[in-house]
Amino acid sequence: MLIVGELINTSRSSVHEAVQSRDAAYIQQLAVQQAEAGAKYIDLNCGTFGRNEADSMIWLVETVQEKVTIPLSIDSCNPEVITAGLKACRTPQPMINSVNAQKGRYAALVEEAQKYKAKVVALCTDKLGEYKTPQQRTKVAGTLIEELTELGIPEDDIYLDPLVYPICTGESAVTDVLETAAAIRTQFPGAHIITSISNVSYGFPNRRVLNRAFLVQSMTVGADAFILDPLDCSLMGLVCASKALLGKDALCMDYLFSAKNGALKVK
Amino acid sequence: MLIVGELINTSRSSVHEAVQSRDAAYIQQLAVQQAEAGAKYIDLNCGTFGRNEADSMIWLVETVQEKVTIPLSIDSCNPEVITAGLKACRTPQPMINSVNAQKGRYAALVEEAQKYKAKVVALCTDKLGEYKTPQQRTKVAGTLIEELTELGIPEDDIYLDPLVYPICTGESAVTDVLETAAAIRTQFPGAHIITSISNVSYGFPNRRVLNRAFLVQSMTVGADAFILDPLDCSLMGLVCASKALLGKDALCMDYLFSAKNGALKVK
Repeated sequence: MLIVGELINTSRSSVHEAVQSRDAAYIQQLAVQQAEAGAKYIDLNCGTFGRNEADSMIWLVETVQEKVTIPLSIDSCNPEVITAGLKACRTPQPMINSVNAQKGRYAALVEEAQKYKAKVVALCTDKLGEYKTPQQRTKVAGTLIEELTELGIPEDDIYLDPLVYPICTGESAVTDVLETAAAIRTQFPGAHIITSISNVSYGFPNRRVLNRAFLVQSMTVGADAFILDPLDCSLMGLVCASKALLGKDALCMDYLFSAKNGALKVK
Repeated sequence: MLIVGELINTSRSSVHEAVQSRDAAYIQQLAVQQAEAGAKYIDLNCGTFGRNEADSMIWLVETVQEKVTIPLSIDSCNPEVITAGLKACRTPQPMINSVNAQKGRYAALVEEAQKYKAKVVALCTDKLGEYKTPQQRTKVAGTLIEELTELGIPEDDIYLDPLVYPICTGESAVTDVLETAAAIRTQFPGAHIITSISNVSYGFPNRRVLNRAFLVQSMTVGADAFILDPLDCSLMGLVCASKALLGKDALCMDYLFSAKNGALKVK
């Protein structure tokens, strides 16, 4: 299970302000806390900065890697921002978040992925903003695996994103994600599947309880990578417990070790 | 989603002592608390009382229904104890917990089920104590549905139990349950599936986190009834959130109502 810490995202106002004022200490603390809580990647997103996004991304990468040694996930809609972020990375094997199957969309980024041996989050869509059925998403997943591996990205570095829409957008928003993930798991057993946990609860009250339920749901149908808030101890406890119950924790050693260390003392 | 409150079970030492000393107030408080927390049935199990089990069951039934109006689940391995418990029930449609497909095992109880129009928990096994594969359990599920409906029990009153073993018994204990439930849901779309949530964590530390993960897992693959501790607010919050995410809560009204009432304020 790969955990990507989501907290350094300027859609959160405190993070936007910290990036705006170049408050390195605040950002570094968020990075260190997430790494200590079990994140294996730190996601960086400064999409709110518009035409200053690339400069802000470079500053974020340089600032964060002064304090943590785990790799970074460079998260942007803009390939030029991703390219700038990757160039600033010193830690090996960064993550590109994200490419999709839109024609020509990832040509430039695939070259970058090869150069940095990066992991690649690949959205299961060929037209951003268009709602896809589970069947369409699964078909795109197949295309992405085929094309990206042909272009030289190892399958083990591809993380398929089944497109997590908020439940407030419709009653089938989440069942469509789960159906997509289950179909990908069946049709492409070796594929990684990544879900953005807190997308699901956008616009709803008591978001944490929705996030926790969705974490377990998506893990149950085969997701093995998660962009989430690692500082939510109950959420991280559920990752550990679900892994043990799904037979993905040999002899439940991780679970028993975490229990012994007091890491599972949730109320 | 049908919630059966599990707390009045003499395998819990405080409950054993209360039944032993006929402490009605203690038992009644447990019943009232579970009903207030959202249980739709109260399970009663006094299996630790051996040859005094029937007397204890009658006392439990009479004691509990002095204070709550929701129906009771009469839980015993001994058909005579179930028969005695049912006879003492005044609230309509009790639950029989449980029958199984062992030859002749449920003949007597089916008559009782018809007499009281009871719901029936049916274990997916034809030989208690023998470990069954998911394929074998699913086959038994089919036999149970066929035979019980032929004997006059409406399918809507049958709750198939896919046999929840503790994770400490083996790494595939829970994946076998999930596989069984998923297969039953596919092959018998109209069937009810019930899981005993806290069975899963028996013998392990930090049981609540395992129980919460298993609740969401079993709901994800199609279970729609749960024997659980309704006083665990986080667990009940996950029932509510999972239901909304799975599209089984029209317009998420239950979820939003619970959020507004402060019922989802989990840490």
